[in-house]
Amino acid sequence: MGYDTDESAEQPITELDSETSWQLLSSGALGRLALSVSGRVDIFPVNYVVHEGKVYFRTAEGSKLVELTIHRDVAFEVDEIAEKSGWSVIVHGTARRLQKLSEVAAADELPLRSWLATPKFNYVEITPTEITGRRLVFSDEPDR
Amino acid sequence: MGYDTDESAEQPITELDSETSWQLLSSGALGRLALSVSGRVDIFPVNYVVHEGKVYFRTAEGSKLVELTIHRDVAFEVDEIAEKSGWSVIVHGTARRLQKLSEVAAADELPLRSWLATPKFNYVEITPTEITGRRLVFSDEPDR
Repeated sequence: MGYDTDESAEQPITELDSETSWQLLSSGALGRLALSVSGRVDIFPVNYVVHEGKVYFRTAEGSKLVELTIHRDVAFEVDEIAEKSGWSVIVHGTARRLQKLSEVAAADELPLRSWLATPKFNYVEITPTEITGRRLVFSDEPDR
Repeated sequence: MGYDTDESAEQPITELDSETSWQLLSSGALGRLALSVSGRVDIFPVNYVVHEGKVYFRTAEGSKLVELTIHRDVAFEVDEIAEKSGWSVIVHGTARRLQKLSEVAAADELPLRSWLATPKFNYVEITPTEITGRRLVFSDEPDR
């Protein structure tokens, strides 16, 4: 990359271990869900909660849910970007709509607030297959 | 953020017209880029700028750029979510890496700040084919 830095100085990009990534993921509430249907990529902001190693969100009937049922491989990203530093955690996994009454009832107990004043009866669960996280330190671009 | 409404009876979800969506998109600086490669969806936070109807960002050499050159159909989302209300704008379009020296030089004049203290020599341009926006008003979920 042609970028020299003192090892003691903060690195601009630090890969986070899985445990730290999970901690950050669990600390957030707003994420963005990306999925692909027939080659068309789509992305949605969702309110979410982490529970026992899975990500849960609710959705009203609509295109998002339809897409999820068609193609279940998703990417989910959460970040917190401030002026000087930030972090980003990305989960890859599979999404499915909760259908058993027992699991819907369990999900209904999660501290998952819905923003919109519309009924959202559908819970979606993402089972991660991979989690990656990066801590970012911002500054002016180095001289070229 | 530069968006006012005179509607007295606020709906939980309001579809925004194209002009308003462009205004909001232009007001932001941080977006999330979603793309798909061989059925695997990925998502990245990027710093961006809007110029003459297109979205520009920079990227270092790496997986993101490689993916973009493999599959150019992308979705790009920008939002601003506060406690009581928010908005989200989603662009679908095609991404390409700027390669002509003249267009790279023009992009280099854009007010596009790079966060990371790593050299980022690659400009990517998204040409939107579709833009949609929604304004969201949050409240407690209605009684079921």
